[in-house]
Amino acid sequence: MAKTTTIGKYLVHRLEEMGLKHVFGIPGDYVLGFYDLLVASPMKVVGTCGELGAGFAADCYARVQGLGALCITYCVGGFPALNAVAGAYAEKSPLIVISGAPGLRERQRSSLLHHKVRDIHTPLHVHEEVTVPADALEDPLLAPKKIDECILACLRHKRPVYLELPRDLVDAPCAAREPLPAIEQSSDPLALREAIAEATAMIKSAKKPAILAGVEIHRFALQQELLNLVEKTGLPVAATLLGKSIISETHPQYLGVYEGAMGREDVRLGIEKADAVLILGAFMTDINRGIYTANLDEANTINANSERITIRWHHFDRILLRDFLRGLTKALTTGKGALKPAKRAKVKKSDTNHKAFKPQKNKLCTVKRFFERMDEYTIVIADIGDSLFGAADLTIHRRTEFISPAYYTSMGFAVPAAIGAQMAAPDLRPIVFVGDGAFQMTGQELGTAAKYGLNPIVFVLNNKGYTTERFINEGPYNDIHEWAYHLLPQIFRKGWGCEVRTEGELEEAL
Amino acid sequence: MAKTTTIGKYLVHRLEEMGLKHVFGIPGDYVLGFYDLLVASPMKVVGTCGELGAGFAADCYARVQGLGALCITYCVGGFPALNAVAGAYAEKSPLIVISGAPGLRERQRSSLLHHKVRDIHTPLHVHEEVTVPADALEDPLLAPKKIDECILACLRHKRPVYLELPRDLVDAPCAAREPLPAIEQSSDPLALREAIAEATAMIKSAKKPAILAGVEIHRFALQQELLNLVEKTGLPVAATLLGKSIISETHPQYLGVYEGAMGREDVRLGIEKADAVLILGAFMTDINRGIYTANLDEANTINANSERITIRWHHFDRILLRDFLRGLTKALTTGKGALKPAKRAKVKKSDTNHKAFKPQKNKLCTVKRFFERMDEYTIVIADIGDSLFGAADLTIHRRTEFISPAYYTSMGFAVPAAIGAQMAAPDLRPIVFVGDGAFQMTGQELGTAAKYGLNPIVFVLNNKGYTTERFINEGPYNDIHEWAYHLLPQIFRKGWGCEVRTEGELEEAL
Repeated sequence: MAKTTTIGKYLVHRLEEMGLKHVFGIPGDYVLGFYDLLVASPMKVVGTCGELGAGFAADCYARVQGLGALCITYCVGGFPALNAVAGAYAEKSPLIVISGAPGLRERQRSSLLHHKVRDIHTPLHVHEEVTVPADALEDPLLAPKKIDECILACLRHKRPVYLELPRDLVDAPCAAREPLPAIEQSSDPLALREAIAEATAMIKSAKKPAILAGVEIHRFALQQELLNLVEKTGLPVAATLLGKSIISETHPQYLGVYEGAMGREDVRLGIEKADAVLILGAFMTDINRGIYTANLDEANTINANSERITIRWHHFDRILLRDFLRGLTKALTTGKGALKPAKRAKVKKSDTNHKAFKPQKNKLCTVKRFFERMDEYTIVIADIGDSLFGAADLTIHRRTEFISPAYYTSMGFAVPAAIGAQMAAPDLRPIVFVGDGAFQMTGQELGTAAKYGLNPIVFVLNNKGYTTERFINEGPYNDIHEWAYHLLPQIFRKGWGCEVRTEGELEEAL
Repeated sequence: MAKTTTIGKYLVHRLEEMGLKHVFGIPGDYVLGFYDLLVASPMKVVGTCGELGAGFAADCYARVQGLGALCITYCVGGFPALNAVAGAYAEKSPLIVISGAPGLRERQRSSLLHHKVRDIHTPLHVHEEVTVPADALEDPLLAPKKIDECILACLRHKRPVYLELPRDLVDAPCAAREPLPAIEQSSDPLALREAIAEATAMIKSAKKPAILAGVEIHRFALQQELLNLVEKTGLPVAATLLGKSIISETHPQYLGVYEGAMGREDVRLGIEKADAVLILGAFMTDINRGIYTANLDEANTINANSERITIRWHHFDRILLRDFLRGLTKALTTGKGALKPAKRAKVKKSDTNHKAFKPQKNKLCTVKRFFERMDEYTIVIADIGDSLFGAADLTIHRRTEFISPAYYTSMGFAVPAAIGAQMAAPDLRPIVFVGDGAFQMTGQELGTAAKYGLNPIVFVLNNKGYTTERFINEGPYNDIHEWAYHLLPQIFRKGWGCEVRTEGELEEAL
């Protein structure tokens, strides 16, 4: 007789098997049965103040750990978290969303069940727009296959998936787990060969080639491959804003963050004056292009990411980024015109951050000076606005320790994200930069940090409104009410806060 | 030559024309141009801490005022508010959602625009699931018609609509406004006559008929019609939980809130022992049915709402609730077996609330005693859980002054809703009952109340967790971190707070 388990246990055990140690969310009656299974598992259930906070925390956990999970109730749990799931989709964060749902039997008894909106599948349809894929586990026969497909899709596309489980099927018997099939796909060998040959010829014949690397290097765990390519070829490398910290920022060949004319001039020139630009795992969004100030010549561009490889104006499909990176490294460093690490690019940095910071005691601390002072910290989570643009030039010392929703640019990410980051990497103490506007959205999640004994250092950059918007349109709608942010530790009964205005006060606080 | 205006102005003027005095939301770059038009109008833009708060505030404003508007930016603004929009759909609150969007021109320049998720219409598709209808204003020729259709649909169905405006079309010329066509529909006269005759016969031949009235009485402004029917026929009347306060709760014929076996026994008997129950504008949801404890015999039931009229097991379409109410009142009070107000039901109330409350100074204040004490307040907004179930038996003195998401049951509604309520009715001071769990979700909106000088009285019922869930499944996930809630006025730099444990302390605080 074939082995069996229950749908709930199948799902819980798959999450464990994927290496998850934490699941984020808030319970509700339609998901309580599944919560009991989570509590009985070795995984820890992390309850936040709101579902949006749980979503951001789970997203950031996924960015650090490689996979995250959010477990919420039907509609009233999933909808408040939707914004975080959408951000995970936009920025390729592998997040498994599990939602409770009314039982199949109670659906027959009444069509007007609490939390229901238009029809029973409204949340499924909503999530279909922001996941790959969304599915409902309404048939024990199909549930194991659907669960496995969702997990594999999540890992393959590095994007969220949504699984909905009716509460009366949590304990329904289903087939036991089989080993999860490998998700490794393979490249089309002929397309791969042609793309590598073409890219190699372009880079070898260039006088000043350069690399621009993006967030997929982290998502697909290709940091070592990137480092090999950089060090064996001696090419200079810049990062996109979303990809910031995919390579150690103290690496001698590292240029800095490229943001067109919005970023540092030396980085702009290093990329835009290159006569061959190898873009790796980066998406040339409006933000990464410095809000259209980027001036990249497509005639000199090789753009390789997980979806396709584009050289000048033609595309190659079915090539894995990993295979391309490895093959290209080999081809560039062998044969005629091979690049040598001896010819390593000497990156001249105009960056003044590395001068020791000397506080001027009674001087009001500006955003610029603040970030100069902050340059010595090592894990940074930046919210949107000044927090992000100011933090872009911080030097990040280890790999992948700068996290920000730099493309989706949703405010309110950073505080809950710090909870996810520290759960995933308990030895790291997150430094959070967040504007006052963003803080008012999700800052109460500091209470969650207090609940679990986490100790993020949070800097609320209080500029009394939505400052990034003031540059576009000034209006009274950009003003926000000023809180006594530094008193919040009294509310959460833990931690310590203070107000800082001058550079001297900043030193004292630190 | 035909008169023209711009799409932005057309929309702003329509909102004004509908009597709106406030628009709720948070700006973002894709909607700033439209915000400038709002600021230039006589309407006030109310900025909250988060979009979910703005959504709940606008929803509650709509419940009090008859129409509400929420204006947010593309995706990162709309998605956090989605839960409130879904709640407005479920509970029939007429809410106009206006979202900014990337300009048509910039969509051609780049496909990777910040805030974008899957494709440019992702938020439109998401909102299609929770609105009637959702539309994008991408053609100046069609924009006036689409705006009018949306507003009319919102008023007709008492449900949210979604309009998305690309930022480069805010100032695009379009045809000037024409008078908005009347939305009055008419009943099918033959169906109406048959339904009234049948209902009249059923009620006249019954020995103990009773009325159960719901939230649509308020949404469709039929309170006077209901009162006429009740007073001219002398029938006793109960309200559903969602419909609580659609009739003055001190009315001599008012029974109380009917919630099956979950509510007061005398109300249950008053409805379930009736041999003809006239359900008016109520949706028999699982919550209104007392979580399936309701025992209503369909053989004795006339169920009339805005969507259809059902007598026993057959349905009538195309009958307006207003026409049915008026016709039925006339038919019941004339002809053979006419009901007379003289035979008015004598409602015996087991309710002890009306005894003067005598505080017992050193006794810990229980939830039951707390609500007995609260019985003298007049406008109440209750969040979900103990706050709602406890508040259900409060006596509401004026009409429609009890507001709670009693069907969609999303936590976190009450605090932001109080902002919307007081904006809509500045002479009323809202009393808010909210659990600690719900308060942690959106309680920061007290900062918004401080910003605008509002003065809701907020009772955080601190039972240290998700208490309603404890009754279903007890688990560590129901515990939440205890805040020093009473210190929050210091954070918001306004207001006053204190902790209350005993009945004596409660008296002192009041």
